[in-house]
Amino acid sequence: MKAFGKCRWAIAEGYIPEGSHGPAPEMTSHETACILNAGDKDAHVNITIFFSDKDAIGPYEITVPARRTKHLRFNDLNNPQPIPRATDFSSLIESDVPVVVQHTRLDSRQDANALLSTIAYSGE
Amino acid sequence: MKAFGKCRWAIAEGYIPEGSHGPAPEMTSHETACILNAGDKDAHVNITIFFSDKDAIGPYEITVPARRTKHLRFNDLNNPQPIPRATDFSSLIESDVPVVVQHTRLDSRQDANALLSTIAYSGE
Amino acid sequence: MKAFGKCRWAIAEGYIPEGSHGPAPEMTSHETACILNAGDKDAHVNITIFFSDKDAIGPYEITVPARRTKHLRFNDLNNPQPIPRATDFSSLIESDVPVVVQHTRLDSRQDANALLSTIAYSGE
Amino acid sequence: MKAFGKCRWAIAEGYIPEGSHGPAPEMTSHETACILNAGDKDAHVNITIFFSDKDAIGPYEITVPARRTKHLRFNDLNNPQPIPRATDFSSLIESDVPVVVQHTRLDSRQDANALLSTIAYSGE
Repeated sequence: MKAFGKCRWAIAEGYIPEGSHGPAPEMTSHETACILNAGDKDAHVNITIFFSDKDAIGPYEITVPARRTKHLRFNDLNNPQPIPRATDFSSLIESDVPVVVQHTRLDSRQDANALLSTIAYSGE
Repeated sequence: MKAFGKCRWAIAEGYIPEGSHGPAPEMTSHETACILNAGDKDAHVNITIFFSDKDAIGPYEITVPARRTKHLRFNDLNNPQPIPRATDFSSLIESDVPVVVQHTRLDSRQDANALLSTIAYSGE
Repeated sequence: MKAFGKCRWAIAEGYIPEGSHGPAPEMTSHETACILNAGDKDAHVNITIFFSDKDAIGPYEITVPARRTKHLRFNDLNNPQPIPRATDFSSLIESDVPVVVQHTRLDSRQDANALLSTIAYSGE
Repeated sequence: MKAFGKCRWAIAEGYIPEGSHGPAPEMTSHETACILNAGDKDAHVNITIFFSDKDAIGPYEITVPARRTKHLRFNDLNNPQPIPRATDFSSLIESDVPVVVQHTRLDSRQDANALLSTIAYSGE
């Protein structure tokens, strides 16, 4: 199957809520980038994290195999360093083959969980 | 009316929550692709489901008649096989005429329901 | 100011929840199309509503004055006829000058309200 | 790094909920524009606020430094004047270098918070 998507995406919103209600891991507050690689070649993906008041960190390197999806929790990114909780950030996602990126957050800080999701920005 | 939209869409996020609060079917946790066919020809739509750790399945074949909408619950897709619950997936949606696709989830695992929605990715 | 946006938009998701918790009108369950007309000419907007199992209805005609926004509740559309509650629909939004359209729902059927929002599809 | 994004964005939805549950500032009801400047030059950003029944106000001038993000709460905009609460508005966001804009709301008027988010409209 032909690859589908773009090679460069941005998620301007980013925030890992601190604290959760409900059983882990499914109800743990989390921030996710869902990356679909519909094509026949593995995608090598580099993620850079931007902050409001300090230098960007990264790249975080992940692989999304051919014809697979990865729902990547920013909570789980540890190399080169964990992403701080309760801190504003943005992310830039660059792949060597076209992919599709969607951003989702589950926030269970209060009794009933809240959700948000949006397609990321791909642009030119 | 002239057709409106694109023939190829992707929803990178996909997850059918397991468990619900409230009366079925309206408050049952569900994952939906809303497909608008504003044109004068029926749309024959093929859906392929991608996973993180196994081969894609499909196509699921559905028809959206001319000048109709279909709010398709992934929960209801059974042929060639049901989509597993509480499992990460992505979907690729291909139509023979232009359509518009929007992704919505209602999650009622906790006491008060949460909602997310986004236009799907259509790209080139 | 130069007009900004597109003349043709679609919202594939559409559903007015039946029932609400909390004070009206701000906590009444509602479905909204937010229409920004940043330009110097009034926008004459026609909305067509599509269903899953019957013919489309409309057009609903509204005006968004120059350099104004309108947060249009589908609940309030009555001419040519009210939009049925708890029913799947989609909408096509056509304007004679460029506008920007965003879709929002507040669902207060359960104790704590849920929200969704997405930019509408504008395409070609 | 090359700049990424567009210079002109619109958020058609806009509403600062009045009232909150939970500790400030993180659970205070708020409306946010997240602005990522991934490039090497500071972004000088002008925001204009449109209403349904009165003239637009602005510009609100902010700077997003090179390779930084800013999660701008509309609640905090005070110059030339605060944005009224519980009032429908839209915003137009213009930058002198490309940026990426995403819109998020946290609504904690009821016991459990609700969230919405969407990429803003960038268009031509």
